Amino acid sequence: MRHLKSILLLIVLSIGGFCFAQTAAVEDFKPASTNQPGREYPQVNSEGRVRASISAPEALKVQLDISAVKYDLTKDANGVWTGDSGPQDEGFHYYQLWIDGAAVPDPGSMYFYGASRWGSGIEIPAQDQDFYALKNVPHGQIREQIYFSKNNNSMRRCFVYTPPDYDKDTTKRYPVLYLQHGGGEDETGWPGQGKTNLIMDNLIAAGKAKPFIIVMDNGTWAMPANTPRPKPGERPAGPWPPTGWADGFKKTLLEDIIPMIDANYRTQADQQHRAMAGLSMGGMQTRVITLANPDVFAYVGMFSGGSISVEDINNAPGFKEKNKLVFISYGSRELENRRMGFGGDPQANTDALKEAGIKTHFYVSPNTAHEWQSWRRSLHEFAPLLFQDNAK
Amino acid sequence: MRHLKSILLLIVLSIGGFCFAQTAAVEDFKPASTNQPGREYPQVNSEGRVRASISAPEALKVQLDISAVKYDLTKDANGVWTGDSGPQDEGFHYYQLWIDGAAVPDPGSMYFYGASRWGSGIEIPAQDQDFYALKNVPHGQIREQIYFSKNNNSMRRCFVYTPPDYDKDTTKRYPVLYLQHGGGEDETGWPGQGKTNLIMDNLIAAGKAKPFIIVMDNGTWAMPANTPRPKPGERPAGPWPPTGWADGFKKTLLEDIIPMIDANYRTQADQQHRAMAGLSMGGMQTRVITLANPDVFAYVGMFSGGSISVEDINNAPGFKEKNKLVFISYGSRELENRRMGFGGDPQANTDALKEAGIKTHFYVSPNTAHEWQSWRRSLHEFAPLLFQDNAK
Repeated sequence: MRHLKSILLLIVLSIGGFCFAQTAAVEDFKPASTNQPGREYPQVNSEGRVRASISAPEALKVQLDISAVKYDLTKDANGVWTGDSGPQDEGFHYYQLWIDGAAVPDPGSMYFYGASRWGSGIEIPAQDQDFYALKNVPHGQIREQIYFSKNNNSMRRCFVYTPPDYDKDTTKRYPVLYLQHGGGEDETGWPGQGKTNLIMDNLIAAGKAKPFIIVMDNGTWAMPANTPRPKPGERPAGPWPPTGWADGFKKTLLEDIIPMIDANYRTQADQQHRAMAGLSMGGMQTRVITLANPDVFAYVGMFSGGSISVEDINNAPGFKEKNKLVFISYGSRELENRRMGFGGDPQANTDALKEAGIKTHFYVSPNTAHEWQSWRRSLHEFAPLLFQDNAK
Repeated sequence: MRHLKSILLLIVLSIGGFCFAQTAAVEDFKPASTNQPGREYPQVNSEGRVRASISAPEALKVQLDISAVKYDLTKDANGVWTGDSGPQDEGFHYYQLWIDGAAVPDPGSMYFYGASRWGSGIEIPAQDQDFYALKNVPHGQIREQIYFSKNNNSMRRCFVYTPPDYDKDTTKRYPVLYLQHGGGEDETGWPGQGKTNLIMDNLIAAGKAKPFIIVMDNGTWAMPANTPRPKPGERPAGPWPPTGWADGFKKTLLEDIIPMIDANYRTQADQQHRAMAGLSMGGMQTRVITLANPDVFAYVGMFSGGSISVEDINNAPGFKEKNKLVFISYGSRELENRRMGFGGDPQANTDALKEAGIKTHFYVSPNTAHEWQSWRRSLHEFAPLLFQDNAK
């Protein structure tokens, strides 16, 4: 009898536990690190679920919209709507709320530029978040640099990371990485949700990367005037990105940005000490620009943005002789979903490049998709490989 | 008969015109300069009215909430709600939308920190906006500086403006202004909506101000742990600001921030080359901190944040001998509304200080209230008076 009771209890608990796991979230939600100061919501639990909450007493329908899925919130007696998403990948995600048909930012979150708009973002704590944690180590600076661009006939701005010791010894000169955001993002992506400065500060403090300057500019708003520009939230028609995008940014980068950086920062202003990398659209721009300019860039990084083939190299005179590294990376879910495109299997292309005598590095970010955690990790893998074999 | 017709027409037109002026906006609305890239709304017209517009097909009620007034929007056949505010003062204003009882940021605007939240802001074009316009002149940098604070036992950040020639001659040293935001704002206020860098770049390009460094830190989150902290959108009970706020920030400023700045920037690290100013709560902190430390600061600026009396000076040993300027300013509407408080009539106090032998400057910003246009203009008036009589 006692036995039977125990067994029954066990069965009940098991079924209960099973149902619980299927329908309800683990109740260990905490405010997200990306919240506005003092805000209790949104929250994240140990499963990576997002719990949103907003007071909207007269609303008829409120939804949380994250990773292309809309989750209904439910209203309590005080008119506060609350609800949970399914589990999200580790790392950073853009999201928004829908209130009676209006798509709006969550007033509890900080705001980030992505999907062609300033809006809500949320951080799902990652197993490896230590590599971009804010620590008591020497810190570099992120500088807002305003400059005039002849090619665009306008004032522009970029952000420049200078390493921790930059102002200590004003005779020392540094290599430079030009690091580009993706489509629908801007120059705030890498210094903001990309956590570029913290990744570099931690790598440099650990002796794992050489100190170098990083320039983060806007690769979208640097097109010839007649290039079709996407409206907020829209993808432009035709090939992605349009040819003009890479070409327009190429002129701006080569003729405006690099000379301005070399004139205003203590750079090592030669090919051996210059790298370019980018994510998604920025990776495609990197491919076009570095293949056409092997005298300008020695190191190439493409994060979730295609790859370089042997045919590409054969059509790029001087590239094979002068390039020092081709780094290709993807999130594992992109490869599973075959969201690689952009000119064939990136790993096969990269293996073939290595066979052809190019120094290559292929990296896969575990359990992430076309999103910032893949790109933070890519920078963290890429940076230690840069500027290592220059005896200077 | 012809005469009568003309007179009648004139009367009709006059009445029509009168009614129009009372009820309808002048139809010369343009997208605000503070909009997100590519967004058509919100818009501003020549009267300073704000026109908001948002798609919310299922909403029952949508309002524009600006300068403490809520304006109803009306819905068209496509579910888009649109409506106008009354005329606003020139300059920058925080605002938000209400959708069926939910207070949310406008997805069309850029976001700014004020009223203890990141939310929408809008720029009403000002007659004198040229002084903070982005021009093709030499530009300084805004640097994000991360540092460890012993007093707070945590990592903190501030923004540091370095003037245009800072990196050109690395032997030159510069005076420093410590410039504080108001209550419910943070260290992003002055470099963001304050347009500090553009005001300084333009003044320096015109030869109207000496180049100096400006440090913008967070005056709220530097309190002893037991100081009551306001919740978002709330004012704390009791005196404003609580005594602990000025004291907490005083220790952080004197023991953490100033030594860090002097160690990491090429400062002229003495009293003669150090100023402190702030707006509203930041002005009150400036008053407490500079009166208690005449050996540390030579120049004092309080913008819409009270004044310094002869009694204050008499109770501050050394201040009268060592101070080089007390600058007090207000928006004209604050004086009209007698929103001066904080220790008596600021103009009378300042006149009495001058009588007592202190060098003073009293400035009134025309047709503005307790808002950023008053403070941009105050900085623009204050900066040319700084560090002028140091023969060094």
